Order: sequence, then C-alpha cells, then structure tokens
Amino acid sequence: MRIATIEVQGASRVVIIDEAGEQYWDIADVVPEFAGDMLDLIKAMPHPGQQLKPVGPGQPLAGVRLKAPLNRLDRNLFLVGKNYHEHAKEFSGSGFDSSAQVVPSAPNVFTKPASTIVGPHDAIESHPAVTQQMDYEAELAVVIGKGGRGIRKEDAYAHVWGYTVVNDVTARDLQKQHGQWFLGKSLDTFCPMGPWIVTADAIDPTNTRVQCWVNEELRQDANTADLIFDIPTLIATISAGIELKPGDVIVTGTPVGVGIGFKPPKFLKAGDVVRIAIDGIGTIENRVR
Amino acid sequence: MRIATIEVQGASRVVIIDEAGEQYWDIADVVPEFAGDMLDLIKAMPHPGQQLKPVGPGQPLAGVRLKAPLNRLDRNLFLVGKNYHEHAKEFSGSGFDSSAQVVPSAPNVFTKPASTIVGPHDAIESHPAVTQQMDYEAELAVVIGKGGRGIRKEDAYAHVWGYTVVNDVTARDLQKQHGQWFLGKSLDTFCPMGPWIVTADAIDPTNTRVQCWVNEELRQDANTADLIFDIPTLIATISAGIELKPGDVIVTGTPVGVGIGFKPPKFLKAGDVVRIAIDGIGTIENRVR
Repeated sequence: MRIATIEVQGASRVVIIDEAGEQYWDIADVVPEFAGDMLDLIKAMPHPGQQLKPVGPGQPLAGVRLKAPLNRLDRNLFLVGKNYHEHAKEFSGSGFDSSAQVVPSAPNVFTKPASTIVGPHDAIESHPAVTQQMDYEAELAVVIGKGGRGIRKEDAYAHVWGYTVVNDVTARDLQKQHGQWFLGKSLDTFCPMGPWIVTADAIDPTNTRVQCWVNEELRQDANTADLIFDIPTLIATISAGIELKPGDVIVTGTPVGVGIGFKPPKFLKAGDVVRIAIDGIGTIENRVR
Repeated sequence: MRIATIEVQGASRVVIIDEAGEQYWDIADVVPEFAGDMLDLIKAMPHPGQQLKPVGPGQPLAGVRLKAPLNRLDRNLFLVGKNYHEHAKEFSGSGFDSSAQVVPSAPNVFTKPASTIVGPHDAIESHPAVTQQMDYEAELAVVIGKGGRGIRKEDAYAHVWGYTVVNDVTARDLQKQHGQWFLGKSLDTFCPMGPWIVTADAIDPTNTRVQCWVNEELRQDANTADLIFDIPTLIATISAGIELKPGDVIVTGTPVGVGIGFKPPKFLKAGDVVRIAIDGIGTIENRVR
C-alpha cells in the first residue's frame, strides 16, 4: 500500500494512493478518529498494511501536488555512508574521504535535519555562496514503525513501517572541509523524498533496483542486494544504544555512480534534473535551482 | 537571568530562578498567557532577559528537582569537535581520530539527538553491552533565540537566547569504529544538561572558565577565550546553508583533559561522578550508572 502526503486547497492531507496512481483516499475518511500528519499516523498505527483499507470510491489524483510523505520528524534522519562496495571504492578514490578505511568495518552513521526534506518534485537549492560541488545520492530509506532498543537482527523487519526514496544531496566541498559529514549533507532542501511511503508488507527491500539519472543520463544502477550492511544490521547497530522511535528514518546509503566518482567529477548545477527510481516504490524528480 | 525546567508534583514547569538559587517563579505566573515548555518559551520570547520580570514573592527552590532546561527539541543538537587547540592535539595523539588534520581548518560539526539529554543530576547509562570506552567532555552550549540563514558574524550574538552547560558524553570505541562520530555521541543519556539556561544578557561567553572533575579529580580547566572557532564563527558557519531556528542548540567543543588524552586512557566506569562547572552559569553533576 502507498501512503502519501498531498496538498489539497493549501492544506496537507495524508492519503492512500492506489496501485495505478490514479485515485486517493483521505486517511481521515478511512480512520474517522484520525487527524494529523504522517508522523502522527505512524505513531498511531504500527501496521498500516493490515490496518488500513480504502472505503468507497477514491478521488482523482491527477493535478494533485505530492509533498514529501514525511516532512515533520522528531529528530534528524539517520543516514549511512559508504554502504555499497563499488561506491565505497569510488568515494575513497575521489580523494574526498578523510577516512583510512575504503570499505568500512562498521556502518558510518551521520544525520541530516528534517529541514532538508522537500517533496518528490520540488526544487533543490544550489546554495552557490556555500558550495561549488553539489552531488546526488540515490538511496532507499527505511521508516521505523515500532520503536525499541537492542533490536535483534532477526526481529528488525518487524520494526519497519515502510520504505521511500531519498536523494541524499551532498556538498562535497563542505563534506571534506568540515571533517564530519553533517554540514555537507544538511543544507536546506538537500533531502528530496517520496513520492510516497510503500508499506513494509508490499515490497522486498533486499532485492530491488535503485537507479538515478541526471538530465536523462543514467548514473547509478544497482540493487539493494549489494548493500554492505543490510537493513537488519543497520537497525541492530543503531538501536544497540539509541532507542529507535516511531517515525525515525534510516537512509541506507548510495551505490556507485555519484558525481564525485567521475574523472573529472560531474557536479550538479542550476537547471540540472535528478531523477531517482526504486522498483516497487516509485520515482522522484527534482530540478536544481 | 536563570531560566530552568523543574519538576513539581510530577509535572514539568518552566521557571525563573534567583541569583542566590533559593527561590523560583513559575513562568506561567509571570506571563499569564504562557503554557508550554522551554522550547515553546524560546519560540514565544526572543529576548527573555528584557521581557521577563519576576512578580511577587518566589517559591522555595530547596528540594525541587531540576530537569534538563531544554529537553524537547525540534531536531538534533549541533556539536563541534576539536575546537580547543590543546584538545585537538590530545585527540589526534590518542589514535582515536581518523582525520588527517590535527587542528581543523573549518569547524567539525556533528549531531546528537535530544533523546540523549538528561538533567543536571540524572544518571548517565554506561551501556556496557555497547561500549567499554566511555568518556566525558565539558562544554559550553549556545541556545539560539532568533533564527536565520546567512547570519553574519557581527550579528551572531543577537541570535543567542542563552547559554547552558553540557557534558558531551562519548563512547570512544564507537566514535572510532563507525568513522562518523554520530553513533559514539548519541547513546541514550549521553547529554547531561543544565542546571539552567542563563540568558544571553547575563554572561560574557567569550571569557569564562570551564572545569570538569571526575570523582573530585580536576581533569579539565580552560577558558572559552581559547576556542579555535568562536561562537560568531560557529553560528555563521552553520547558518550559511542551514536556517537556524529558535531552540536550536550549538555545543561549542571541549578543552584538553578528556579521558582519552591520558596514557593510559582514563575511561568512565559505573559509579564515577562527573562534575562540570562553567563560571557564570552553574554546575551539573552526574553519576555513571
């Protein structure tokens, strides 16, 4: 099931969208006592795929603006760096990595604040006064439903609410200059997300294709089967000392083919269009402004 | 002026505390229309030192439990690593730093989530299943009042609401193993804070003493005048591409004398008591559990 946040007459609504992408049902009509945003829904309903059923005829989706499915968070998104083998090599080879390890022995976890999140078709700011080396990173994002600390790998998937697509936009110069990656990852608008959340029951996240195009040129094309640290390992590692909470987002890392991996590098510039597709979820497409 | 969060009959109250630390005034009595926590107060009142005046007799503070002054945030705290010269050297010399630069050329910014925050006298969990190398870091924390992007250094102090004391507790083994520092900084309870926020008008943050004792042994003793990147530089750097918001917290870095700087290292263990004092603010004291 696809659950989205849309804009209707200037207000945000959480809705179910059909497989054909033609109709939507307002959650407030399906769950009469519900009034809130996606974060509220996640907290109220840990198993949406089982609990939500569209009722009656839907409304036409055509012409409706999709927003980022989850644009209010209680804390920063958790992200993972260097989590595909070939990308770890290209990143080390680029000279932009201050770390000694090419392939990490443990997940490299950093964050970006929710203020970076924009919708699946919104513009990405190029921040020309701050960075001259803007890059894209296509990634599968995991939305936590049931919280917990010390979650075991074998139980991890029971804590997942759903999946969505994220572009972990990165200012490579800031990422390098500031040692820690946070600043280079966290400029306003640097996290396009969407087009919706696909509930955990509706996709196999261990074997799905991740692709990224810049101006129609295919740059990234990989499968989540190639993750170095899989989703259960990420959930177990983070939750070992941090209680995960409903609505937390873990972004799993990007495959080979980012701009910095080319010689010379292919950075983004104003006017470029980045499209990211993950099979079983959908596509986001964002223009650099 | 000191503004604290206290617990009264199981409920949290935001209060003014007098200089002697003997009386308090509930903000709800001083500002009749106010009902909320510290984050709400910061959003509602950008200049508390000018706007708040205790009215009538206060209530006795004796026996009242102080909580962390700011325990709900909209996003993770911003923290700065290696921001005192001598500490940068000890950290590099410890072998725990994967970075090539001893003294950074730009601020190293990372985050920890608000779920790490505990009160000025609360216990710090030792997380024995996760870390065997727990360390303390005494730090001055800056609370942002007026938000903004592209804040100039010369305007930076106008955006500060107040200051508080933070212990940036760190699991050195995780900090090293995971490349990025986030996980090693973010275990639950790893951010003791307090005892209150001192409003910006009431302290000179450019020249104040920071001290830390472990079990009565003085370990850190420095002055904020020795910061490599001063508060205006930190605010300008972060806000260059990230719109700062009321209630954001920037923790400015720790001076020389952390446990990892000793040979052999002096890590914290269950039962240890860490006391941190910053002149003009106050003292926090937390036992490791």
